[in-house]
Amino acid sequence: MSSRYSEAGVDIDAANEANRRIGEHVRSTWTGEVLSEVGNFGGLFRIPEGLKEPVLVSSIDGVGTKLKVALMAGKHDTIGEDLVNHCVNDILVQGGEPLFFLDYYACGKLRPEILEEVVSGISRGCKVNGCALIGGETAEMPGLYSVEEYDLAGCIVGVVERDRIIDGKQITPGDSIWAFPSNGLHTNGYSLARRIVFEKEGLGVDDRFPGTGRSVAEVLLDVHVSYLPEIRTMRECTGIRGLAHITGGGLLENIPRILPGGCAVTIDTSSWEVPELFSYLGERGGVEKKEMYRVFNMGIGMIAVIPASSENKVASGKYRFSPFRIGEVVEGDGKVILYSA
Amino acid sequence: MSSRYSEAGVDIDAANEANRRIGEHVRSTWTGEVLSEVGNFGGLFRIPEGLKEPVLVSSIDGVGTKLKVALMAGKHDTIGEDLVNHCVNDILVQGGEPLFFLDYYACGKLRPEILEEVVSGISRGCKVNGCALIGGETAEMPGLYSVEEYDLAGCIVGVVERDRIIDGKQITPGDSIWAFPSNGLHTNGYSLARRIVFEKEGLGVDDRFPGTGRSVAEVLLDVHVSYLPEIRTMRECTGIRGLAHITGGGLLENIPRILPGGCAVTIDTSSWEVPELFSYLGERGGVEKKEMYRVFNMGIGMIAVIPASSENKVASGKYRFSPFRIGEVVEGDGKVILYSA
Repeated sequence: MSSRYSEAGVDIDAANEANRRIGEHVRSTWTGEVLSEVGNFGGLFRIPEGLKEPVLVSSIDGVGTKLKVALMAGKHDTIGEDLVNHCVNDILVQGGEPLFFLDYYACGKLRPEILEEVVSGISRGCKVNGCALIGGETAEMPGLYSVEEYDLAGCIVGVVERDRIIDGKQITPGDSIWAFPSNGLHTNGYSLARRIVFEKEGLGVDDRFPGTGRSVAEVLLDVHVSYLPEIRTMRECTGIRGLAHITGGGLLENIPRILPGGCAVTIDTSSWEVPELFSYLGERGGVEKKEMYRVFNMGIGMIAVIPASSENKVASGKYRFSPFRIGEVVEGDGKVILYSA
Repeated sequence: MSSRYSEAGVDIDAANEANRRIGEHVRSTWTGEVLSEVGNFGGLFRIPEGLKEPVLVSSIDGVGTKLKVALMAGKHDTIGEDLVNHCVNDILVQGGEPLFFLDYYACGKLRPEILEEVVSGISRGCKVNGCALIGGETAEMPGLYSVEEYDLAGCIVGVVERDRIIDGKQITPGDSIWAFPSNGLHTNGYSLARRIVFEKEGLGVDDRFPGTGRSVAEVLLDVHVSYLPEIRTMRECTGIRGLAHITGGGLLENIPRILPGGCAVTIDTSSWEVPELFSYLGERGGVEKKEMYRVFNMGIGMIAVIPASSENKVASGKYRFSPFRIGEVVEGDGKVILYSA
């Protein structure tokens, strides 16, 4: 009896084909700082010149079960952009500007054409954010993943001048909370959303999403917004005291991550219109309001804490997605208090 | 009907408990360059001082289906060390010294005690290699992973002075190939090895591994060696022209990754004793010799290309695992030629 590795479910030739397919996508993201070649063991990246005291800011993340929706819809070319934008936002909240990205793709059976779609999305996200894709791992793991499925994670490294780090320490009662709108679920709350949409309501990915002219797949796969241009613009207008990316845990759990002692936050939930998507999920799922604000972003993708005196300056900036005031910092013990004026 | 997020299989309270459990492990790895706190969105790391022209070297990887063996054995406290050491070696081959690490842990059902074991291994690996664990993502993805399973990936970032990058460009016919021994499969070839050991031979993780006094789990879970101390010692002895980490693809596919045009390599496979583990897998699995050298490391974890004139100096270094000569660089077209003297 003879064994070849491919019989054990690992196909080195498919891996080689995959590498050929993704090479061009990867190279298209490279900035002048990239010193390595595709196929090197590690990615080489020269630290940009002209920085006084550079601090690296890094984050690693996945896309959660939004992947499941991409798999159901057979649409693999945007989930990588979700991943990059999510990671960009995670370092942006400390003031980090993206430098480079690495991705991890693990699957049951390597299908080079699907990997290429996924990497095309990663590359698009990297280019839009000025970030070089300098490394990646493609793992074929039969027995851990089913044949049709894969997981996707990515790591971003950015840089910030030490005296430009945003850390929330200057936040003080009286500061204002401004919000940037999300365009959908971004990458959080998909386990609950899928349960409501597909199991309770029995919808399919190609059905019309109620209250919209779009399919379920389109609505649920809207690409996570990168707030890099927005935050750059806002920083030109004023000093930002704190930023929170509204991911898993929602407004209720992400804002406290940046509050110093003695501060709490009040949010007026009537200061924006919660998108129909969330109302639908709350009503059809019978989800309590507090749980909704803990699981979903409720229409807010990023919040900024600014001095109240800066509001006019901030409002005058030119944004793709204009920010608006939703609350303020008060004295308290780190809680987020929701009310409706 | 009411939905709570936990009913959809995502337990935010378990996530909070997990974060409490791993905090101490994570902090124990922190070097003076770490500026962030546990719970920050991104990890902050100050670039070490005193570097003339620092280049960042990064890599992302998983542990492949070695995970499956860890799951079968219920032993989760070393797989993280495998991951770190693998990544350390991947940047080491370009001369990179580790700075920091981030991990991605994705599972079907978050069990904080298992996550803690995994992170304890990551932390141990980080400490041994002088690498700070500054970020991580724990993803609970019911429906993608089964309840008992998880996947693990990690990203390392290191640094090298630009004029100390090892890139293989100086490799020339006549150079010598020296090898550092592996201590087992490291993290490659597990899909085939598992098939042979568990399916063909019908062994269990607690059975004695034939020819050894140890269990199957012990033999298959031996921790991937980090060659950081070895390579530091070797660099003190001589200039290294090229390094290859012997991972998936074995000697046959990893050495060509660093060869410049016009070079090939001859390897005398009689110059070391292939460990019993590999002989057993080859014989019981009926795997052809060439396939063995493509799938497994065959007892060689890392190879270094050095000038032939440096051999005495290299041999005089004080190593934990002493390197030995296994071949040389010849004129050719990038192939690795195996022979037995």
